[in-house]
Amino acid sequence: MNDLLLRSVTLPDGTATDLLISAGRIARIGNGLTTEGTVEDCGGALVLPGFVDAHCHVDKTLWGGPWVPHSAAGGLAEVIANERRRRGELGIPSPDYIGALLDAMIAHGTTHARSHVDVDPGVGLGGVEAVREALARRKGRIDVELVAFPQEGLLSKPGTLALLEEAVRSGVENIGGLDPAGIDNDPVGQLDAVFDIAGRYGCGVDIHLHDEGPLGAWQFDLIIERTRVLGLAGKVTISHGFGLCGGISAERQERIIAAMAEQRISMTTVAPVTRPAPPLRAMVAAGATLACGNDGVRDLWSPYGTGDMLERALFLAQGCGFRRDEDIELALDAATHGGARALGLADYGLAEGCFADLCIVDARVPAEAVATRPPRTLVVKSGTIVARHGTLTN
Amino acid sequence: MNDLLLRSVTLPDGTATDLLISAGRIARIGNGLTTEGTVEDCGGALVLPGFVDAHCHVDKTLWGGPWVPHSAAGGLAEVIANERRRRGELGIPSPDYIGALLDAMIAHGTTHARSHVDVDPGVGLGGVEAVREALARRKGRIDVELVAFPQEGLLSKPGTLALLEEAVRSGVENIGGLDPAGIDNDPVGQLDAVFDIAGRYGCGVDIHLHDEGPLGAWQFDLIIERTRVLGLAGKVTISHGFGLCGGISAERQERIIAAMAEQRISMTTVAPVTRPAPPLRAMVAAGATLACGNDGVRDLWSPYGTGDMLERALFLAQGCGFRRDEDIELALDAATHGGARALGLADYGLAEGCFADLCIVDARVPAEAVATRPPRTLVVKSGTIVARHGTLTN
Repeated sequence: MNDLLLRSVTLPDGTATDLLISAGRIARIGNGLTTEGTVEDCGGALVLPGFVDAHCHVDKTLWGGPWVPHSAAGGLAEVIANERRRRGELGIPSPDYIGALLDAMIAHGTTHARSHVDVDPGVGLGGVEAVREALARRKGRIDVELVAFPQEGLLSKPGTLALLEEAVRSGVENIGGLDPAGIDNDPVGQLDAVFDIAGRYGCGVDIHLHDEGPLGAWQFDLIIERTRVLGLAGKVTISHGFGLCGGISAERQERIIAAMAEQRISMTTVAPVTRPAPPLRAMVAAGATLACGNDGVRDLWSPYGTGDMLERALFLAQGCGFRRDEDIELALDAATHGGARALGLADYGLAEGCFADLCIVDARVPAEAVATRPPRTLVVKSGTIVARHGTLTN
Repeated sequence: MNDLLLRSVTLPDGTATDLLISAGRIARIGNGLTTEGTVEDCGGALVLPGFVDAHCHVDKTLWGGPWVPHSAAGGLAEVIANERRRRGELGIPSPDYIGALLDAMIAHGTTHARSHVDVDPGVGLGGVEAVREALARRKGRIDVELVAFPQEGLLSKPGTLALLEEAVRSGVENIGGLDPAGIDNDPVGQLDAVFDIAGRYGCGVDIHLHDEGPLGAWQFDLIIERTRVLGLAGKVTISHGFGLCGGISAERQERIIAAMAEQRISMTTVAPVTRPAPPLRAMVAAGATLACGNDGVRDLWSPYGTGDMLERALFLAQGCGFRRDEDIELALDAATHGGARALGLADYGLAEGCFADLCIVDARVPAEAVATRPPRTLVVKSGTIVARHGTLTN
C-alpha cells in the first residue's frame, strides 16, 4: 500500500497541517511533510475522524429498492407485527439493499458501525447471513460489528433465546435485548438470560430500552447491577435509554450517570425529534459515554434516514438545544469518539499511530460541518481512499 | 422568451407527463408535447412547485461570510441584546451576505419568500434597503416580500412604530409585531398600533408570537378579533404561534383553528425541534393554512440552516411524528401551497395557466423527496431556468 499524504488540512482544533498516512495508519501530523507516495491537496479543508454509526439496523433496510410507503399503525407492537407480516413479501433482509445502504454510509464517511440484526424464529439467522454477505463484498471499506437483536421479544417469543446464543456462537459480537419490561414483561428474566450468555461467551451487550421515566430508569439499575456483578465493565451499551432523558429527578439521573461512568456502560442515541434529548452535557461532565447512530434507514419502521452521521449529529445538537460551537462539537463527538468508545475501538482518532480512518469536508470548523453537512470530499478507511465527493472509488 | 418543454416528468400525484412552459406560465400538461423552443429531458424525475419560504430573516444572515461562533446567552431578550450589540461590528445587514443566502435559496428551488426585516431606531430602514439592494440584483430569479419587523419590541422601544409606518409607506408589504405580551408587555396596545397601520395602508400583518399556552392562545383571540373588525381576512399571519401547539385544551385549539380558517389567518412554522409541533392535521381538516419557513439562517440567533425548504419540510414532518406518505405530503404542502396561500400568491401551482415556478428532483414520490432532499436538478422561475444541480445558471 502506497503512502498517502493529505496536504493542507485543518484539524478540528483549527490547526493547519499536513497528514501523512503509512501502512494504514496516521504516521505523521505536521507541516511540510513529503512522500514518494500519493499526494492529495486538501486546500485547507477540515479533516474529521471517520464516523461511527453506533446504532443502526442495516438488515431491515429497503435502501436502493422501490419506494415503500409506510404502512404500520402507531405503537411499537403494531410496527413489529407489520414488519413480521411484510418482510418476506418485500424480500428483506436483502444483501442488495444492505449493500446499497452500506455504500451510502461509506460515501458519507462512516468507517465503523454497530448494526443490530433481527434474530427470531421467523428469520432465524437469515439476517446475520445477509449482512455478512453484504459486508464480505465491502471488505476493508467499513467495519461493522453485529448485535443479535430479539426484535419480537425475547422470553415472550419462545425459541429466540437459543437463536441469540447460536448467533453469538457463530461470531456475532454482541447480544441484544428489547424493553425487558415494556415488551417482554419479565425484566429480570430477560436481563438474566442476556447477561448469562454475555458472561459465558464474553461478548458485548447492547439493550434497546425505550421504556421511559421511572420504569426505564429502574431497568438502568438492573443493567448496571448485572454489569458490575459479572465484571462486564466496558462491554455494555444501553440503546435509546429514554428513561435517563426525562421523567426522573436530577439527582436520580446524576446517580445513574455516575454508575454508568464507573462501569463504562455507554448509551446510544438516535436523536429522535419527538423524544426528550439525552443529558449529553451531564454525561460528558461525569465521564460517561454517549454514542450516536442512524437507527433504521428507510425500512418498515421509518421512511426517513440517509445513513449520514453528520446529519444525525445535527439532529442531536438541535435536539439538545445546542448553538455554541463547543456544544455542537459534543454532538459531533458522540458521532465519532463516543461511538468509538462504545464499540471499544483501539487506536481511533486523529493522532499519530491511529488507524487512518477519516474524512475531509468543505467546512472551516466542526460546528460548520454539522450545520451544513457538506459532501465528503474524501473518505479514507485504513489508509485507502474509499470515496470522493460522495461517490465510492472503484 | 423561448418556450421550454420539460419532457418526461412525474407529477406529485404520480402521473407521468410532459410539461410545456410558454411566456412564463405552464401552458400545457400532457403526453407527447412538442416545441420549437428548448427541450429538457427530465428522465421521469419528480416535479414540485417552487418552494415558498414563508418566514425567513434574510437581513440578519452571515451566509457567505466568515464563520461566527454563536455568542448569545439563553433567553430571547439576551439574544436580542447580543444582536443589537454585535450587528455593527459584523457588518450586518449586508447586501452581500443577503445575496449569498438568496442565491442558496434559489439553488434549493425556492421561488417565493417572505422575509421579516428588522426595523428599529438603531438600524432604521437600513435592513430594508440592504435587502432591496440584494433583490434588485436578482430580479426575476426569486420574489421576496418583506415584513417590517420590530425585533427589539414595539411600544417598549420608542420610535419604532413611526419607523414601521415609514417602512410600509415605502412599499414594504407587511407590518410585523413581536410577542405583544411576552416582549412588549402591552398586548392590546401593540396589536392596536399594528392593526391601525394595516387598516390605514391595506398592508398585510405578520406577528411573531412565541408566547406559549394560554397566554399565546389569548393573543390569537386578540388577533382574530382585530382581523374580523377591520375586514383584514386573508391578510394576517401569525408566525410561530406556539400558543396553538400545546398547553391548551383540544376544544380551545379547535375553536381557534376554526376562527383562523374563517378569517383566513395563516400560521407559519419554522418547525423547531425543541418546541411542540403545530397541529397540522387539525388545521388542514378545518381548512386553516399552515405555512413553513427557514427562519434565520446562520445569524446571531442560530448557526444552523441552509435555506433549503425540503429540509424544513423534513423537520416539520418529523416533528409532527409523520411517517405515512400522505402525512409527509402535508408537511411538504406547508412548504409549497401553504406558503402560497399565506402570501396570497395568484396562479401558483402545477396546473395549466399557473406561473412556471417549479423544480425537478431525483425522487419518485414527494415523500421520498422530503426524506432524502436530493439536489434540485432544475429550478425554473417564471419559465426561466435559474439553477441546475444546485448551481445558479449564469
